[in-house]
Amino acid sequence: MSHVGVHCIMELYGCPLELLDDHAFIQRSLKDAAEKAGATWLGQASHRFEPQGVTALGLLAESHITVHTWPELGYAAADCFTCGDHTIAEEACRHLARQLRAERSEIVRIPRALGLKPAEVEGVDPVEAHMCSHTVEVEQFAMGQG
Amino acid sequence: MSHVGVHCIMELYGCPLELLDDHAFIQRSLKDAAEKAGATWLGQASHRFEPQGVTALGLLAESHITVHTWPELGYAAADCFTCGDHTIAEEACRHLARQLRAERSEIVRIPRALGLKPAEVEGVDPVEAHMCSHTVEVEQFAMGQG
Repeated sequence: MSHVGVHCIMELYGCPLELLDDHAFIQRSLKDAAEKAGATWLGQASHRFEPQGVTALGLLAESHITVHTWPELGYAAADCFTCGDHTIAEEACRHLARQLRAERSEIVRIPRALGLKPAEVEGVDPVEAHMCSHTVEVEQFAMGQG
Repeated sequence: MSHVGVHCIMELYGCPLELLDDHAFIQRSLKDAAEKAGATWLGQASHRFEPQGVTALGLLAESHITVHTWPELGYAAADCFTCGDHTIAEEACRHLARQLRAERSEIVRIPRALGLKPAEVEGVDPVEAHMCSHTVEVEQFAMGQG
């Protein structure tokens, strides 16, 4: 039984305040990171807080990538969850750490769906099953506020 | 030194196929789960895949909540990251598990930003610092495709 994908949780410390508070830069860096991982970007939601801080979420064909920044602490919390053999979540994390010029970073790597039982995956390849749903065009993309 | 928040990674197994493939139900369940955690919903991005599967991301004032479903496996991968003492990420997970009628679930609880150095938080309470940025109205909410 294979896992369906890998979820990387990343801590970024010692990042320049001005980068962490730059909404457009954070959005662009997140999208670039997803592409470095070999993932397909389907959409995003993001927000800049007052007096500081940015949250950006990327919706991927292969799951998601997010980053939340605390400029006043030089800290950013990121994660990247991708499924399929063609994507490498760790690459997204490494790219993000470079872009945000982190002095130090930590990545925790969590394989997902390890607890599926044989009966649940009978006749189904868990990676193939989901990945085949990514080969068609976007059918619906709903976004809204509140 | 306190952590800035808690990131819960949840595995949901044995969920009914029809629930996992119901886009509107998944969106609603995610938003309800965020509210159960005491979080403030700022926006969302979601997508239904063909032939099956849903991804939904919720942007919270306190960070994020996501769910990705594999109906053919009866499996959903969720996570909820919240900062601040007024939110309980685990509550969101438990609510989602009930809503999706999971036969079994697993939650991994990860405190975030544990590696901040004393010099980096000097004069700053990491939770307060970020939370104060959530008390004002939405300044910008950008979403776009591709």
